Amino acid sequence: MPVYLDATDADFEAQFTALLSAKREDAPDVDEAVAAIIADVQARGDAAVIELTERFDRLRLTPQTLRYTEAEVDTLIALVPDEERAALELAAERIRAYHARQMPADESWTDEAGATLGWRWTPVSAAGLYVPGGLASYPSSVLMNAIPAKVAGVPRLAITVPTPDGQANPLVLLAARLSGVDEIYRIGGAQAIAALAYGTESIAPVDKITGPGNAFVAAAKRRVFGKVGIDMIAGPSEILVIADADNNPDWIALDLLSQAEHDESAQSILITDSPEFARAVDASVSRYLETLERRQIAGASWRDNGAIITVPDLSTAAALSNRVAPEHLELCLADADGLSQKITHAGAIFLGAWTPEAIGDYVGGPNHVLPTARSARFSSGLNVMEFLKRTTLARMTPAALRAIGPAAEVLARSESLEAHGLSVTARLKHLNE
Amino acid sequence: MPVYLDATDADFEAQFTALLSAKREDAPDVDEAVAAIIADVQARGDAAVIELTERFDRLRLTPQTLRYTEAEVDTLIALVPDEERAALELAAERIRAYHARQMPADESWTDEAGATLGWRWTPVSAAGLYVPGGLASYPSSVLMNAIPAKVAGVPRLAITVPTPDGQANPLVLLAARLSGVDEIYRIGGAQAIAALAYGTESIAPVDKITGPGNAFVAAAKRRVFGKVGIDMIAGPSEILVIADADNNPDWIALDLLSQAEHDESAQSILITDSPEFARAVDASVSRYLETLERRQIAGASWRDNGAIITVPDLSTAAALSNRVAPEHLELCLADADGLSQKITHAGAIFLGAWTPEAIGDYVGGPNHVLPTARSARFSSGLNVMEFLKRTTLARMTPAALRAIGPAAEVLARSESLEAHGLSVTARLKHLNE
Repeated sequence: MPVYLDATDADFEAQFTALLSAKREDAPDVDEAVAAIIADVQARGDAAVIELTERFDRLRLTPQTLRYTEAEVDTLIALVPDEERAALELAAERIRAYHARQMPADESWTDEAGATLGWRWTPVSAAGLYVPGGLASYPSSVLMNAIPAKVAGVPRLAITVPTPDGQANPLVLLAARLSGVDEIYRIGGAQAIAALAYGTESIAPVDKITGPGNAFVAAAKRRVFGKVGIDMIAGPSEILVIADADNNPDWIALDLLSQAEHDESAQSILITDSPEFARAVDASVSRYLETLERRQIAGASWRDNGAIITVPDLSTAAALSNRVAPEHLELCLADADGLSQKITHAGAIFLGAWTPEAIGDYVGGPNHVLPTARSARFSSGLNVMEFLKRTTLARMTPAALRAIGPAAEVLARSESLEAHGLSVTARLKHLNE
Repeated sequence: MPVYLDATDADFEAQFTALLSAKREDAPDVDEAVAAIIADVQARGDAAVIELTERFDRLRLTPQTLRYTEAEVDTLIALVPDEERAALELAAERIRAYHARQMPADESWTDEAGATLGWRWTPVSAAGLYVPGGLASYPSSVLMNAIPAKVAGVPRLAITVPTPDGQANPLVLLAARLSGVDEIYRIGGAQAIAALAYGTESIAPVDKITGPGNAFVAAAKRRVFGKVGIDMIAGPSEILVIADADNNPDWIALDLLSQAEHDESAQSILITDSPEFARAVDASVSRYLETLERRQIAGASWRDNGAIITVPDLSTAAALSNRVAPEHLELCLADADGLSQKITHAGAIFLGAWTPEAIGDYVGGPNHVLPTARSARFSSGLNVMEFLKRTTLARMTPAALRAIGPAAEVLARSESLEAHGLSVTARLKHLNE
């Protein structure tokens, strides 16, 4: 049974704060092991990657078989049934269309001092995408990571996807093909992150690494950060649903369960202004938990991390949601747009009862890689900006330097940086000669 | 004497690679000490911050004096001479105008399936800016960090600036006032970062921390990352100047020295197609190093990390520059704009001989907080985006769900996520009833 909170209870604040600060992730400390793996790959390159892949994935590779050939990819993706291929193609197309609108524009202007200012966006030269193997090998995540990189114009995009015991997922390879991925390596774990960051004889290094992974992958990404860029370190998934009584309790129950089934550490929260509706949703969740394939996982998540909060009014719901800063927020309300104006922190918002969160996982268009663990307070979901950087531009004319140079001289002096000031003074002196 | 490289030498590639991989930073490992400080502040709040400030800054504070009062700020900034005030005001105005153009737009559109998609930008609720004390207490850095936060709309902006032995820098306080900073605390070090991240009785926690600092501050920022957002961890400053023979060697020498004088670990590189010009610049640097106030620092930097590279042509210069991915790049060439089109990685570009890098440090408008240590390959300088996050929006209609829902059902099944699929199926079933 999930925890029930009532916003009008005297001790609500204490209970809600406890809910917010509950630690759901229990990642093992693998940092030492990961440091050793990274050092090994740095020192021995391919040989280390091959040995570690044999040890962890029970797969014997050579420098020649680290990477899939195009023919191997062709053979595997030919196994994908038409229905799944069509669904992936629709998803890819919609994700591409959404992310294409995120491309920022270069700017250049001349101001009243005569200075020409602006900036230019350029993509990273090479990006690496980590794709988990086994159970959590999701083709949709390949699309969500790879398409923004290609929309950004990244010329070289490599993915690593482990194939434990040689088991490949043809859908993952098809998703990579549809996204325009350039290189696919059959490696995983911290050794894959190290190979992407530092390079080996057979794998050229990249400048940016994104993608989800287990504790080893997360620790490796933290360690290579600085040498390369990384995306966020994702925690367990979360959903918060704000729903009034005019909803079908089964729909809301399934939306809550679609997060709960990801992971026992996942969290599903319902906020509603109707205690009756809250009980109806809870009852529906219980019924689905009798038959759901992943009922063990979903049941543990709902029991240990689930919460149902009743509120006197919907603007209290918005205020509580902002404190949660949920990864996914569903607003199943008549005036979903109105309430969404009050939302200041959320990774993604799903508006209205016809927008189940699962649509956003696959075919909506927006990215499903979103900030977890309350980090929507300060970060965004994956987007094309992750693969771009801004170079600022400035050009002075003699007149512009005459106008603003003296202020730079004064400030350089005040900061005791003499050469800074002299570099301006020397030029101004020339103008006055 | 700096290292001289000639791009036409047989062993140039080896020498250039060595230059690229030379480790300039020698930060002490203070991670354990920092972990203890953070734990102490988490456990004891104000009391810990006050004790640590007494120990490190020889300054006795109380919970009431941690924060400057408005009257104290008024008194201190009244000490700033008019000339410096006017220079700071001009800088603030130009930085604000530049960053205002970086504000991204919200978007919303309805696609052919009938889905309404888009995103909305919101600022972080509270940001903290670390300002170093003592020698490296730069008012210009306050402007460069605080103004983008305020342009982004951050409602609460706090700064921490240590005052060793009670020594405050009135210019820093004036810069904070001009930038619209809301709270100023007289604390520093890892304890200030911990207080901003976790909060104390007197200091409310923030969601994002930016700003430069020493090894303790950098280690503390790394540790609180995840709990809050942080900006990059800056390394020693760098400049790369590409200049042809039609330049005044003294101007270029001063531009190189204006990085070298920051720090012995700073790096200044000249790339030119003229060996004669290279020697003239080197000679000029030597002359300035006889008299420059910070000649010890600048001399050590130039001797240990400086480099002069001669190239057969300017497009070789651009290619080498892209491998360096410099923080600052000056193009002192007749066709600076043309060559800048070949630059793929640089934090900031200064175009033409009338644009000394020092202009960008103070009054140009673009930010002077820029990616160091080759990280311009994958990251940007500080900008308003650092203080904003994007919430994606999606709204389906029954018709839109009918159009794209079935693909989501197929993909959910292929990923063995049954509840995901059922949340769509339940709604589609209702439509077909």
